[in-house]
Amino acid sequence: MVAEAVPVHQTAAEPEDPAITLHRAGKMEMRSTVALRGPDDLSLAYTPGVARASAAIASEPERVHDLTWRDNTVAVVTDGSAVLGLGDIGPEAALPVMEGKAVLFKNFAAIDAVPICLDCRDVKDLVDTIERLAPSFGGINLEDIAAPRCFDIERKLQERLSIPVFHDDQHGTAVVVYAALTNALRLTGRKPGDTRVVVAGAGAAGVAVTRMLQSMNLGDIVVLDSKGAIHRKRGKLSPVKRELAESTNAGNLQGGPAEVLRGADVLIGVSGGTIPAAAVEIMAPQSIVFALANPEPEVHPEVAGRTAAVVATGRSDFPNQINNVLAFPGIFRGALDVRASRVSENMKLAAATALADLVGDDLAPGYVVPGAFDERVAPTVADAVAQAAAADGLARVDLTELE
Amino acid sequence: MVAEAVPVHQTAAEPEDPAITLHRAGKMEMRSTVALRGPDDLSLAYTPGVARASAAIASEPERVHDLTWRDNTVAVVTDGSAVLGLGDIGPEAALPVMEGKAVLFKNFAAIDAVPICLDCRDVKDLVDTIERLAPSFGGINLEDIAAPRCFDIERKLQERLSIPVFHDDQHGTAVVVYAALTNALRLTGRKPGDTRVVVAGAGAAGVAVTRMLQSMNLGDIVVLDSKGAIHRKRGKLSPVKRELAESTNAGNLQGGPAEVLRGADVLIGVSGGTIPAAAVEIMAPQSIVFALANPEPEVHPEVAGRTAAVVATGRSDFPNQINNVLAFPGIFRGALDVRASRVSENMKLAAATALADLVGDDLAPGYVVPGAFDERVAPTVADAVAQAAAADGLARVDLTELE
Repeated sequence: MVAEAVPVHQTAAEPEDPAITLHRAGKMEMRSTVALRGPDDLSLAYTPGVARASAAIASEPERVHDLTWRDNTVAVVTDGSAVLGLGDIGPEAALPVMEGKAVLFKNFAAIDAVPICLDCRDVKDLVDTIERLAPSFGGINLEDIAAPRCFDIERKLQERLSIPVFHDDQHGTAVVVYAALTNALRLTGRKPGDTRVVVAGAGAAGVAVTRMLQSMNLGDIVVLDSKGAIHRKRGKLSPVKRELAESTNAGNLQGGPAEVLRGADVLIGVSGGTIPAAAVEIMAPQSIVFALANPEPEVHPEVAGRTAAVVATGRSDFPNQINNVLAFPGIFRGALDVRASRVSENMKLAAATALADLVGDDLAPGYVVPGAFDERVAPTVADAVAQAAAADGLARVDLTELE
Repeated sequence: MVAEAVPVHQTAAEPEDPAITLHRAGKMEMRSTVALRGPDDLSLAYTPGVARASAAIASEPERVHDLTWRDNTVAVVTDGSAVLGLGDIGPEAALPVMEGKAVLFKNFAAIDAVPICLDCRDVKDLVDTIERLAPSFGGINLEDIAAPRCFDIERKLQERLSIPVFHDDQHGTAVVVYAALTNALRLTGRKPGDTRVVVAGAGAAGVAVTRMLQSMNLGDIVVLDSKGAIHRKRGKLSPVKRELAESTNAGNLQGGPAEVLRGADVLIGVSGGTIPAAAVEIMAPQSIVFALANPEPEVHPEVAGRTAAVVATGRSDFPNQINNVLAFPGIFRGALDVRASRVSENMKLAAATALADLVGDDLAPGYVVPGAFDERVAPTVADAVAQAAAADGLARVDLTELE
């Protein structure tokens, strides 16, 4: 008997990764919000009717806010150079992450986000390209762009555009860390001025976390990169690290985790590397450890938990998930609602404070930030951000006009 | 009695233009196609699960076709330089038209189209920008970009990209005109070789219509621009018009409509201007007049109808509407379905022929093309285009794999 031919691509049944199954054909679609039942509808939504909407904007540019979808949209833009923990995988491979981000924007804040994966790497080219795209969007969320060029790109775009430009890997992380640390300090009875913080990692997140925590007036912050503590005497520092060297590490500490963590109150790991358990053990009593690398935290939360009073990670399967989804949907929602021209420091601080306050009296070692699916988060953050925008004179819609 | 204060922005009730009402907040939205009910969903659609989809594409680039929304997407790209009959109104004012186009893509061909309005005008900048955007999209629909730079932009992008790049103002119009003219010649008993055609207008549509009709082996074509017939002895012609001068107007006719329309069989108006009734009257008996300017045809269809056997316009309120929606949804659907690397001449011809054939035995002076809402159109055109792509060796998905 002759066996039936089996097509070569059929292999013995191995159950497929459910994450792969879920990604088939992508995770999003466009939908029309107007009906097209026949010629009458067509003549309103397209020619000749659409010409009247376009003519209205041409003669009165402000009407773009009223007559298009723009003010509810965000471009999620990457060059694919620093995607999650995967690194430089290029624009095509970054697309699932950008789609995922768009799905989060929609689900958590009803924002219409469009994934834009750019095939270029030069800072000038990226800035020029994003600037040219901007007329179509209400805001720009930069995503997974490698440091240090992410800093330049964001700054230049903020200078050129009058819509929010927000590198989420930096500021989303910083806002949630700020909120979680605020509550962890409260829980452990620390005053900021008596608290010494070590930030492990000087990439996009490490730099932004450090800058934002500096507004907390902490006792000191020491930033570690792969070569150890950043201090004034180190040579060959990039401009961003030079700035950190000048503004942190008052004690001019040198060395690696084992040296700088001795007696430190707080460790914030945003490095993607590992921190030896022994270095965590020599921190101050009642220490606070945020090990945010994903999927492998810098130190396992159970190991850190042996000595630390509060442990947070980036993972959903441990308590205290430091998840950017707690920040970016509400921040953009608030900024778009009042047509803020940018996201100011005060708007980020307002977001962080609102987030921390939501924990309220339920504060506990395993609950220093709300959960990702806490439905109060996005509207509360949005409201705080909108009010801060108004207070900073950056809102172009009166708060009283909001529903 | 004191009248109640009325806010200054309230005026005596004048009914608002329904086209303006319909455009409030735009015409489209993004939708997630995956559920996000809780942490488990989040860990598949976003981190950590999404990293496995990205890693799969990074190690096997072909999987971008399977694991993202890209292959069902089209970027609808404009610089806002030649929007409908409104002209150069800029990227913001063009947005309602691009949204409208996206609505048509979705409604007629289930394609997810994204409006991209670019703030730049230089050919090189536009080409570079669109090339950088391309990794996010399955196809590029260029829209409302002024001639002559639209020709260069399309050609350069086609050279650089391996996805369909299609300037709809050119080729969408040309395909539908080709279909309608095929049927009008059949109805009036003409052979192409005995037919003399006048194309009034040498912009994007006029040039593309002329080029496509040249494959019909007509007796002759004469193209008019604002200065009259394009002929070999005219000076100061752009490269595109020089090419037309060399390849059309075998009789070297000179002058305006009154001169070149004498005895002509077909007038195709794509000029936005006007053609005097007297010039239409001196055409050959049983003439064919397509007056496609919108909203005001070059000659009113009732005036043309006094002498012409077949009259078509761009308007939905007269018979024989030459509407690009008969072409671009099906053309992109077919091209995306087989992942065609470009839209070839044969694919456009196949679309036109399929469109003409749909009229079949119902052919009549008032029915030379199907109606815009004829549900057979997009799938029939898509099928013909996919087959032509395969025949041209441009399909990267086997036709037999389609459902």
